[in-house]
Amino acid sequence: MNMLNINWKPDNKSSTPLYRQIADYIKEKIGNGEWTVGSKLPVQRDLSKIFGVNRSTVIEALDELKADGLIEGRGKKGTVIINNTWSLMASLPSQNWEHYIKSGIQQPNLHTIQIINKLEYRDNIIRLGTGELSPELFPKEMMKKIFANISNKINSLGYERPKGSLYLRKILSQYVKKFHINTSPSSILIVSGSLQALQLISMSILKPGSTVLVEKPSYIKSLHVFESSGINLRGISMDKDGIRLNEILRNLDNRTSLLYTIPTFHNPTGTVMSQHKRDNLLNLCMQERLPVIEDDAYRELWLDETPPDALKSKDRNGIVLYMGTLSKSLAAGLRIGWIIGPESVIERLGDVKMQTDYGASSLSQYMAAEWIESGLYEIYLESLRKNLKSRRRAALKTLEKHFSDIASWNIPAGGFYIWLKLKSKINMEKLFYSCCKNGILINPGYIYDFNTNYNIRISYSYASMYDLQFGLKKLSKIIKDL
Amino acid sequence: MNMLNINWKPDNKSSTPLYRQIADYIKEKIGNGEWTVGSKLPVQRDLSKIFGVNRSTVIEALDELKADGLIEGRGKKGTVIINNTWSLMASLPSQNWEHYIKSGIQQPNLHTIQIINKLEYRDNIIRLGTGELSPELFPKEMMKKIFANISNKINSLGYERPKGSLYLRKILSQYVKKFHINTSPSSILIVSGSLQALQLISMSILKPGSTVLVEKPSYIKSLHVFESSGINLRGISMDKDGIRLNEILRNLDNRTSLLYTIPTFHNPTGTVMSQHKRDNLLNLCMQERLPVIEDDAYRELWLDETPPDALKSKDRNGIVLYMGTLSKSLAAGLRIGWIIGPESVIERLGDVKMQTDYGASSLSQYMAAEWIESGLYEIYLESLRKNLKSRRRAALKTLEKHFSDIASWNIPAGGFYIWLKLKSKINMEKLFYSCCKNGILINPGYIYDFNTNYNIRISYSYASMYDLQFGLKKLSKIIKDL
Repeated sequence: MNMLNINWKPDNKSSTPLYRQIADYIKEKIGNGEWTVGSKLPVQRDLSKIFGVNRSTVIEALDELKADGLIEGRGKKGTVIINNTWSLMASLPSQNWEHYIKSGIQQPNLHTIQIINKLEYRDNIIRLGTGELSPELFPKEMMKKIFANISNKINSLGYERPKGSLYLRKILSQYVKKFHINTSPSSILIVSGSLQALQLISMSILKPGSTVLVEKPSYIKSLHVFESSGINLRGISMDKDGIRLNEILRNLDNRTSLLYTIPTFHNPTGTVMSQHKRDNLLNLCMQERLPVIEDDAYRELWLDETPPDALKSKDRNGIVLYMGTLSKSLAAGLRIGWIIGPESVIERLGDVKMQTDYGASSLSQYMAAEWIESGLYEIYLESLRKNLKSRRRAALKTLEKHFSDIASWNIPAGGFYIWLKLKSKINMEKLFYSCCKNGILINPGYIYDFNTNYNIRISYSYASMYDLQFGLKKLSKIIKDL
Repeated sequence: MNMLNINWKPDNKSSTPLYRQIADYIKEKIGNGEWTVGSKLPVQRDLSKIFGVNRSTVIEALDELKADGLIEGRGKKGTVIINNTWSLMASLPSQNWEHYIKSGIQQPNLHTIQIINKLEYRDNIIRLGTGELSPELFPKEMMKKIFANISNKINSLGYERPKGSLYLRKILSQYVKKFHINTSPSSILIVSGSLQALQLISMSILKPGSTVLVEKPSYIKSLHVFESSGINLRGISMDKDGIRLNEILRNLDNRTSLLYTIPTFHNPTGTVMSQHKRDNLLNLCMQERLPVIEDDAYRELWLDETPPDALKSKDRNGIVLYMGTLSKSLAAGLRIGWIIGPESVIERLGDVKMQTDYGASSLSQYMAAEWIESGLYEIYLESLRKNLKSRRRAALKTLEKHFSDIASWNIPAGGFYIWLKLKSKINMEKLFYSCCKNGILINPGYIYDFNTNYNIRISYSYASMYDLQFGLKKLSKIIKDL
């Protein structure tokens, strides 16, 4: 029997527990086919020396590998690798997904996002970048009313139609009239949130090898939803009233398939596109036959005055695919969003959705419908705006106090984000990791941008008021120390 | 300006309304690039002659095209095509999805499924094939209790962790002990139903060009979830206690990537794999290093006695990926299922899920957890079994009375399905369409099979008791008339 050679130690300084590092190391060796079935591991006492850890840590790691069915303890004969099928398969992913996953890991920003996703579930971490409503803003009492209402309305919870619940689509077609969007229920597709909307669009109607124009910076840069379908992103810079139209024109070529834009309370910069620019953009896109995805996730979160109408409201040519959602304004966990567009495109996307997951949760669809239909959504939004306004005020006040000498920023008119620009060119990755160690989670600007930048996306929506102020103060100290 | 030439008439005999046929025809011409922007349509009076329909029908069709932004009426100057962007894009899908969608349309079975999906929302149609619980079996009163309970428990509805709600995963790890499956919450992934589970598996861990072995016939044959990732299905025939092991061995080659099986209350045949065969199958798969997907959607729906334990319960090597769901036993509209498997595979699948839709509805996850945790699920299942038992009895009695001379069938020990085998070789597609015309929706066996067959999947779960008996009687008459 083949005895394995180990030439590696876990990292004491890593935030990953030692036993997990060891288990992952062994899994990788097996998964890579480097350690084959039948190979024998050194006895626990030797492993503890080799790895430089306590024996109990070794045992913890081996127990996990046993539970995974990868190794087997055979008493005095030691520990033997008995299986590698699934692990082996996991290391031989399909071509497309290998690209999908790998392209993520190779880019430094994804590593940052992985850490963000991981640390979000740690206790005692202050989340200064999270683009989500704080649990303390959740309208719990109203939700009880909604529950009571729908529990009387739901007679069964079966599959919904390919485009989603007709009841919800009817309500949405009324609701969006508020934004001067005229549409019929048959031109609306219910989706499980905006990410799925983008996923469906990129898989169903875009050609691999084509290019999507996006604002520079843009939230979309932190995802791989287009790239995973073989579509390239090209960044178009912005000025204070939105994306630069001349630069769109300069970047058009025969590979350009569409423009993705967040005209209202842009993520991450908070920019609002002016009415004038909206009109010109729509004209430009019509002239150039450039379809537009308008991501309107933040529209309801205006703080000073209602924003200009959506591009979609003036779209007489079916050139705009409009995306809305309840994730930012009510509850991300509902996983309910919608796409409004030409019926043929909506049907195509609905068809693909049915082949993907048979539609969004009917329960969530009932709840979304009830929130809007009952009028409680409107009432809740009014109080939410007040809450977000005080949060914005607190954040801006703290910035004034602790960041005036080291950064500049915008005053967002809505949405969640302040786009903090540092004055000195510090190492932003170092800053990110330094913050993590100090219990502060930030979203560094580089995950959203095409170029190097010295920005931080601060969100005033998530952390508690106390944490927000305390965290920002601490952040300024960390920056000054670097 | 280019005046268009039309050489086509809508089909009076089709079930599709005339105006829709006309609108679709014009959309297709524009979408295909055959009719370009700027082209002029004949005036309404001429169109009405060309198509052989009333002018009001023409107007209805043109109004739809206007709403889609495809044409514009310019007073006396007639109607002009003004746009084709989205439609054009919809006709140029990405390579992968063109294959995905096209491979569906080319296969006659998908056309049948499209019709099934469409007719399911018609009033007055008797659905004899639907694999879903009847709305009348929905536990409405219990659901009210569940709503009351969770409305007190939900403090916010944010995003869940990559593998899904830890609370639900803990409850599931307890729940599956009932089936002698031992697993920790970290080896469970919550998915939006079984279709998504299969989608994630096929995208994340299978190689394009590889082969998946499945029972012949199998439910999976009616989907395109594996084929859309470039994976081929190979059918393995069954005998009365499940899939043939010798035939698995004969069909193994270096392209075989895994076995997909429904050992318990198989869909569509209702077969239950014996304990003896389960043991042998697991041994065979371990010897041959052939991973298994065990689809256990119907386990809770036993009618006579509890079925043999899941394959997963004896899997000491992490060779089985186990799929469970609430869709068949409680509510399809919850869109909640789960995968249990080696942690590394589960993490891989969870990663891909997060990149697809940020997880399943948190609301549905709370509800699923509450059903199981409260014990109401168990109580409900007992009464559900009684209801399904009377439905089975009624179906079998009607079959005895009206099908003894024309068909044979199994007596299912659980699940939803009776696999009716006709004695004479009639044209099954003709039968399907003939049933549709007579207000009866059946699931013909050919959508599930690799070979021609003369079977019908009868489901006693969906139609009302009256419809079930009336519909079956009518079906026997239609068959005898063919």
